Amino acid sequence: MTILKPGERLDDLNRHGLTIIQDPARFCFGMDAVLLSGFAQAKEGETVVDLGTGTGIIPVLMAAKTPAKHLTGIEIQADSADMARRSVAGDGLEDRIDIITGDVRDLSPYFKASSVDVVTSNPPYMTDMHGLKNPSLPKAIARHEVMCTFEDIARETARVLRPGGRFYLVHRPFRLVEIFEVLTKYRMEPKRMRMVYPFADREPNMVLIEAVRGGKRRLTVEKPLIVYKAQGVYTDEIYDIYGY
Amino acid sequence: MTILKPGERLDDLNRHGLTIIQDPARFCFGMDAVLLSGFAQAKEGETVVDLGTGTGIIPVLMAAKTPAKHLTGIEIQADSADMARRSVAGDGLEDRIDIITGDVRDLSPYFKASSVDVVTSNPPYMTDMHGLKNPSLPKAIARHEVMCTFEDIARETARVLRPGGRFYLVHRPFRLVEIFEVLTKYRMEPKRMRMVYPFADREPNMVLIEAVRGGKRRLTVEKPLIVYKAQGVYTDEIYDIYGY
Repeated sequence: MTILKPGERLDDLNRHGLTIIQDPARFCFGMDAVLLSGFAQAKEGETVVDLGTGTGIIPVLMAAKTPAKHLTGIEIQADSADMARRSVAGDGLEDRIDIITGDVRDLSPYFKASSVDVVTSNPPYMTDMHGLKNPSLPKAIARHEVMCTFEDIARETARVLRPGGRFYLVHRPFRLVEIFEVLTKYRMEPKRMRMVYPFADREPNMVLIEAVRGGKRRLTVEKPLIVYKAQGVYTDEIYDIYGY
Repeated sequence: MTILKPGERLDDLNRHGLTIIQDPARFCFGMDAVLLSGFAQAKEGETVVDLGTGTGIIPVLMAAKTPAKHLTGIEIQADSADMARRSVAGDGLEDRIDIITGDVRDLSPYFKASSVDVVTSNPPYMTDMHGLKNPSLPKAIARHEVMCTFEDIARETARVLRPGGRFYLVHRPFRLVEIFEVLTKYRMEPKRMRMVYPFADREPNMVLIEAVRGGKRRLTVEKPLIVYKAQGVYTDEIYDIYGY
């Protein structure tokens, strides 16, 4: 039985009966998290760490979709981490998923250097702090680089990933030049990229990237991921990723 | 009257009656050059330099499509430069286009530093010299980095472009990480990018990039450019760029 607190709701993930607790007043996961969980790969026996896990959506979906041995979500906001832990318990995934309340700017208390197979992250996209009335609000922390920058995430990822380990991230295309620069600065080579276009005739609003620690230089750009085939109608691939 | 030599043919460019001389035994321009001439922008009164111009296809198309004041094509292969000059004469464009037989690895004999508004290039894509039976063949020089590297082109472009001047290039997506790295090394910020997908469900085989000398960091990734809507049938946008 999943335990809900006031204001929280239980959302069905359409996959093996899994559910997740969310609070719309705080932050609900978006399509970006779902697409990242479909893009990321984890093999039998591998360990996965999700940085800034929020309500734990990425570890829960990856536990369902991959044969990863163990997944850890790190979240600095205690309330979100608590929701994530209750979701994991409600889904009966305590033996595969741990949720740590912690700061992704220093992973040394939690992981040894070069010890992790896979890191995932759906980080805050915006560097711009203008117009942020209250930077301590959960939505601001999830969307703006208030608590950590992309470079913090890349630096810590590079430290905990084993050589050959993979870093999967979703971000906004407008930051692509900086993303490549920071990844290569920390010797994580972008190897696979997919642009997500809301419609076939629109600018992409997300980009999915796989970088490999110490990988050889050569990028594969994949076929476009198109979200809607008509207003309000997902493409078959999106229905497939969502598990409908 | 355009003068043709043995083996050469005169191809119609479907634009104001313009034609270009090509020799299929040497090298014929591809869709990449046509797409670049559609992606690149030159304003009234601006000067344009095309590096590795081959038979001059890019200056000829840009003379037709833009109000650029003057265009210069640089080509190291004397035979190709000669064909380009005869095409320019046959098209009556001698007052707007100059073709220089020269080496793009050093543009100082031809242009002063910071003097050019726009540089275009459809450079050799391949670094790999394996399997090149004769690296002096025209096709090898056009496709492989035999006579110049991408870094040579970027370095010389950055030297001749005025601050705020634009560099337009077409390249292969698999080299995107290196392209961004080299462009930013020479302070040319990628500002606009478009992926070219042969079909809506295939990997892109070209990428179009606009970089601005001294530009602020922020990339706009444009809507996908899809080439075929069915086997052998171009999309409307491709017909439009070709001018049919």
